Amino acid sequence: MKEIDSYLVQHMDESIRELSLLCAQPSVAAQNWGMAECAAMVEQMLQRRGFSVEIMPTGGAPVVVAERRGKSSKTLLFYNHYDVQPPEPLELWDSPPFEPTLRDGKLFARGVSDDKGHLTSRLFAIDAFLATQGELPCTVKFIIEGEEEISSVHLNDFVRSNLELLKADACIWEFGGVDHEEVPVQYLGLRGICYVELSVQTANMDVHSGLGGSIFPNAAWRLVWALNTLKGPDERILLPGHYDTVRPPSPRDRQLMEALPETSEEYQKRYEVKEFLHGLTRGVELRLAEVFEPTCTICGLTSGYQGAGSKTVLPARASAKIDFRLVPDQTPEQVLASLRAHLDTHGFSDIEITFLGGDAPARTDPDDPFVTMVVESARPVYGMPMRIVPMSGGSGPNHVFVHDLNLPVATAGVGYAGTLAHAPNENIRLDLYLKGAMHIARILKEFAA
Amino acid sequence: MKEIDSYLVQHMDESIRELSLLCAQPSVAAQNWGMAECAAMVEQMLQRRGFSVEIMPTGGAPVVVAERRGKSSKTLLFYNHYDVQPPEPLELWDSPPFEPTLRDGKLFARGVSDDKGHLTSRLFAIDAFLATQGELPCTVKFIIEGEEEISSVHLNDFVRSNLELLKADACIWEFGGVDHEEVPVQYLGLRGICYVELSVQTANMDVHSGLGGSIFPNAAWRLVWALNTLKGPDERILLPGHYDTVRPPSPRDRQLMEALPETSEEYQKRYEVKEFLHGLTRGVELRLAEVFEPTCTICGLTSGYQGAGSKTVLPARASAKIDFRLVPDQTPEQVLASLRAHLDTHGFSDIEITFLGGDAPARTDPDDPFVTMVVESARPVYGMPMRIVPMSGGSGPNHVFVHDLNLPVATAGVGYAGTLAHAPNENIRLDLYLKGAMHIARILKEFAA
Repeated sequence: MKEIDSYLVQHMDESIRELSLLCAQPSVAAQNWGMAECAAMVEQMLQRRGFSVEIMPTGGAPVVVAERRGKSSKTLLFYNHYDVQPPEPLELWDSPPFEPTLRDGKLFARGVSDDKGHLTSRLFAIDAFLATQGELPCTVKFIIEGEEEISSVHLNDFVRSNLELLKADACIWEFGGVDHEEVPVQYLGLRGICYVELSVQTANMDVHSGLGGSIFPNAAWRLVWALNTLKGPDERILLPGHYDTVRPPSPRDRQLMEALPETSEEYQKRYEVKEFLHGLTRGVELRLAEVFEPTCTICGLTSGYQGAGSKTVLPARASAKIDFRLVPDQTPEQVLASLRAHLDTHGFSDIEITFLGGDAPARTDPDDPFVTMVVESARPVYGMPMRIVPMSGGSGPNHVFVHDLNLPVATAGVGYAGTLAHAPNENIRLDLYLKGAMHIARILKEFAA
Repeated sequence: MKEIDSYLVQHMDESIRELSLLCAQPSVAAQNWGMAECAAMVEQMLQRRGFSVEIMPTGGAPVVVAERRGKSSKTLLFYNHYDVQPPEPLELWDSPPFEPTLRDGKLFARGVSDDKGHLTSRLFAIDAFLATQGELPCTVKFIIEGEEEISSVHLNDFVRSNLELLKADACIWEFGGVDHEEVPVQYLGLRGICYVELSVQTANMDVHSGLGGSIFPNAAWRLVWALNTLKGPDERILLPGHYDTVRPPSPRDRQLMEALPETSEEYQKRYEVKEFLHGLTRGVELRLAEVFEPTCTICGLTSGYQGAGSKTVLPARASAKIDFRLVPDQTPEQVLASLRAHLDTHGFSDIEITFLGGDAPARTDPDDPFVTMVVESARPVYGMPMRIVPMSGGSGPNHVFVHDLNLPVATAGVGYAGTLAHAPNENIRLDLYLKGAMHIARILKEFAA
């Protein structure tokens, strides 16, 4: 690997330049901003490396699928995405989100970590093989979608319709990296998600609150009362049967979670959170709750007057964005059905539900040989093997990869605890970007063997 | 009054031109937009009519105070305001809110009814006297504030500090007009108001909901749960002791309310409200509830992501704007104190309360001779006396006028059921503008006698 590593060290500037160009191209799926342009840019990046590439329609943002044959008969599939989170709130960025900026050994931009830096780090490793060996050690496929940040609305159907095209022996997921102790982490499994907007309209316009306050229904109050029936301060989600299919962590899960480092101080310091939920303070129970509990998160609320000072108005409309994180074996379909039934039962038939995307949860066995290889191949790069997190708090469309393509899915990447994915000042560290590419190069080599 | 009426008919264009200029000057108190400019414009309008005028500081937007001596020894005080509601939502205006536009015999602009058209209709009546008689029949004073739409934050203190300056024998309030049956209405009494913002912060930044969802407090949920403790779907406000000082309507109130026309069909048609609160459908009980019930109205909600599509974020901040409408003898001070105690008792010490303004409720006796004169002097203009509404649903700083300046406070104005105060497409009808000025002229004459 000496030649490979030395190529990577010497060509960092080029790869960071390519990543900066990619980040300068907005691709906000939620706002349908720059999607086609970004897909075309990704297509060209792959074509330059000799991949056969196809931009495939989905009904939403297109999927980029690419393949390049390699030496061995095995095929490794990389799942990544070119879409990014909305950049708001803009005023909290130290440099503009779509003007990638180098500061303190870090590159700042919306999407630089989630997920454009991960994509280019894979390409960077591929470059190293092509430059030093003239070929790839195994066949490499990419599936790069444009709707990951909006719950991969069309990906499940796309994968199920293209099982042959995407056929592979294993899959490297879109993210990864080191934790707050600088230890590389193998994140296995993803929670599912069911993202909905709840909205209500009580009149055809906002009304002077002095007139309607006593006798007109108020959309904001209707929303508050409806939300309150979903979850109370004890955090128990009140949808009927919501916990019926939840599988508690296994003894092996608990063993792996026990081995992970303490996170409480880090969270308290980073986010200035005063206390954790469920009366938890620290330890394995806090870590287990973080990933093995289903959630119901209000992501946004909007109604009536939100400007400075006061406006005496009775709002005609109100809405909330909500994500339910799901654990095996919950499904988004089940949540949608019980949410409607629950609202109706509690007198909130006036609350409309708009489904904004969903995925079922899925897990990969922590003792799968592919996982073990990825974990061990981190050792020469980071000086230690990866820590195994048996289940991750985030979500993604891994269910079709695990259950329809029948792949073990492992992670490896360039993230770190301060990467600020989904938040202002999203960034990657250049030292970890290099290590991430070195690790991917080793995975390609070991996998091919 | 023939000469007066004929002056008014002949000079309508001039007055509407002056009103249009005044409306073209934004003066949004909530956004501190154009306040000094508008006060200066009002000052000049009064000076042109020979008033001695003073722009007086308040700590917020200044108050314009003016006086011109008249023939009799009596003094009539006009209370008006030059500030307007915020124009948002802008996309629902058919013509820009600060570009006054004539259409279908109506003038459209933000503030044209509330309250700039009322102010100029008084000046128009004054013009008629000065042009035809060379003097005013009585002394006229104006107090024109710039913070009515933000709960008259500084007016109570201002009035209490200037009792001698504002001394008068009676007061004409800022609004009035005809109801949906075209009958002129005497609106007496105003509910009080206590306008607050409730806000909560649970972390120093928004967090990826996949990470924090299960273990971090969520500001939006905290807000929803806190709001839910204030009022449930039965509309009963749950602050301790909130109804202890409420005086139910008297037999005379009920008698006057009985005599008022049905409003239910009009409301259902205008606002497309499907049903009214408290199980009410129509009749005097609906009208009594509209004005004699205290309210707790959510005027606005804001938290987290509110753009298009989905963003998986756990909000660090959330806030709600709330107005409590108060009936005699509730006070804003009492509401503020019990709100804090209530939130603390229910485990919501983390919810901050920002007081954005308040007024105590106050009423004028419907059988006061000044009220009777105003009611009767409508007859020659509208062909009938005014209907008396013994209590109004809106709010305003009439408490200091009634209880500190010891004035009977009556209303007369240019509004109508479709005037859309506080909403997009606010407008006045020109025919009613003329009648309003004619009525004011008669009030001046009768009052002086």
